[in-house]
Amino acid sequence: MSTAANKQVVLKEYVSGFPKESDFDLNTSTVEFKIPGGSNSVLVKNLYLSCDPYMRVRMSKPDPSTAALAQAYAPGQPIFGYGVSRVIESGHPDYKKGDLLWGIVGWEEHSVITPMTHMHFKIQHTDVPLSYYTGLLGMPGMTAYAGFYEVCSPKKGETVYVSAASGAVGQLVGQFAKMMGCYVVGSAGTTEKVDLLKTKFGFDDAFNYKEEEDLSAALKRCFPTGIDIYFENVGGKMLDAVLLNMNPLGRIAVCGMISQYNLENQEGVHNLSNIIYKRIRIQGFVVLDFYDKYSKFLEFVLPCIKEGKITYVEDVVDGLEKAPEALVGLFHGKNVGKQVVVIAHD
Amino acid sequence: MSTAANKQVVLKEYVSGFPKESDFDLNTSTVEFKIPGGSNSVLVKNLYLSCDPYMRVRMSKPDPSTAALAQAYAPGQPIFGYGVSRVIESGHPDYKKGDLLWGIVGWEEHSVITPMTHMHFKIQHTDVPLSYYTGLLGMPGMTAYAGFYEVCSPKKGETVYVSAASGAVGQLVGQFAKMMGCYVVGSAGTTEKVDLLKTKFGFDDAFNYKEEEDLSAALKRCFPTGIDIYFENVGGKMLDAVLLNMNPLGRIAVCGMISQYNLENQEGVHNLSNIIYKRIRIQGFVVLDFYDKYSKFLEFVLPCIKEGKITYVEDVVDGLEKAPEALVGLFHGKNVGKQVVVIAHD
Repeated sequence: MSTAANKQVVLKEYVSGFPKESDFDLNTSTVEFKIPGGSNSVLVKNLYLSCDPYMRVRMSKPDPSTAALAQAYAPGQPIFGYGVSRVIESGHPDYKKGDLLWGIVGWEEHSVITPMTHMHFKIQHTDVPLSYYTGLLGMPGMTAYAGFYEVCSPKKGETVYVSAASGAVGQLVGQFAKMMGCYVVGSAGTTEKVDLLKTKFGFDDAFNYKEEEDLSAALKRCFPTGIDIYFENVGGKMLDAVLLNMNPLGRIAVCGMISQYNLENQEGVHNLSNIIYKRIRIQGFVVLDFYDKYSKFLEFVLPCIKEGKITYVEDVVDGLEKAPEALVGLFHGKNVGKQVVVIAHD
Repeated sequence: MSTAANKQVVLKEYVSGFPKESDFDLNTSTVEFKIPGGSNSVLVKNLYLSCDPYMRVRMSKPDPSTAALAQAYAPGQPIFGYGVSRVIESGHPDYKKGDLLWGIVGWEEHSVITPMTHMHFKIQHTDVPLSYYTGLLGMPGMTAYAGFYEVCSPKKGETVYVSAASGAVGQLVGQFAKMMGCYVVGSAGTTEKVDLLKTKFGFDDAFNYKEEEDLSAALKRCFPTGIDIYFENVGGKMLDAVLLNMNPLGRIAVCGMISQYNLENQEGVHNLSNIIYKRIRIQGFVVLDFYDKYSKFLEFVLPCIKEGKITYVEDVVDGLEKAPEALVGLFHGKNVGKQVVVIAHD
């Protein structure tokens, strides 16, 4: 039976505050290139790993309120997340050697997936960059699709604001909203990202939130007639500013609150009473509830890619040893576009 | 042409902070007992006036975000609110002398309503206490009905928490929820009110929020399996505690935030990130959007009253001169049940 060394990214201890590279170790274990008889496990070689803000939730001490949907990492064990992988050995009837899949895998060179879950998808279309299955064609893509079309209840001509707009999800929400005929403004934290929003993703306007003294004034400048839809990725002060600028019957789809994940005490949001007279709906959502729409999503989005209607920007680093730095960088906005780690190309 | 003295409650100046009796004057003007020819105005004698928390919004400087639905009072002019009135003279085809109506009227002995709006309803059923049209059968009743059945999406067996639960709206929400087979807990600010909730309104449990050091712990005690629905009347710290105790897919119907109306700076709400993984919906609403369902509401609620399935507690004071004190008292929780002011009995 052949075995191989298997490099892994391991969480040392539960994280509080901002995660640091030193919270992770690079270990080497051994993987057996064989599936036990009778098992429906799948042995995969990991090609691309996805760095996603929600992974911060998994780094904290286990919390009953998030455990069901984002199980905490175990200190001393490899962390896990979405990735794109190639099947090496399979005991599963739906997968055979050579197949490609995307879904939850360990942060390691090889993973044994057991059991396969509704968070694993066979890749059927390979005429697109494979790394897209960590982003545009994977979890972030489905998040943008479900969050915008299903949660925001958008209508042509409405005004849409997206925070963290150049990120894995935000850049797609903006493009979906433009395709629907909305007026779209995004915010990001560097000039480079703001330029991307305007020149590459077709946002009508964009601003650097770090250069605005008064976020509410910035929003008023960009939305003189108010905001109908807010796609929330950051929380805290930004949400407070948005509430002041929302229109009656506005919708806020809460995808994430990256500005809050690393704080011991979350910022207070003071302007919630605005939701009464404006009859605002604030709806939290997680993409897991929408994975049954994945094939419908592909039918919609694959032609958009081929026709050049949707574009996608990735920030790619090479090598598992760079993965902790890339992951940690997310929380300082270092990534420009979707943060991907390449482990192997095939 | 006959005229009469017309006592009125006048706002002296825009209010900031808690309203005080001294913010109001009792003036006397003159009313003409005649409708000009060609006018469709209605002259009414006001019988009951309704004291409602939302009136605090009208006492502040005009705010564009609330102006459309809760126009500010004008300093030097009589304030207005919901009331029950008898028609004295009418130029309106739908109303004749002697008819009863409920809707927005001045805080005065007689009012000229011009024009009649969708906030005026002819009273067709008089085999119930007329004062109920300021509460159970008026705006607060419709608020509880629409807020619970339309906004909360309730299901049998769910757990429901109501704050300000003995108030004009809360006492009904609790009873509606019990009728649907929900487990219902309410909070209020005195022992007397808590007793009312348990003995008179049939809540499964109740607590005095002023006697709880840790609101989240109190909620955990009352809801060991979590809260499915929160009917929000108070805001601030209570909302923060609720967010920690909400169940996945929970709903928060935001009817009001009385704890915040009198604060210069609203309290910060820190636990909003709970709405993501719990996929919570927070929905602000105003009753005006639901008045088209008023006749359906009456069909539902009138038999409930007659069969003793719904009860209603009012806190009645006598005389327009007592009205400012009663109104101001709302914001200190002095009322036990729906606060009504009697101006005249017929």
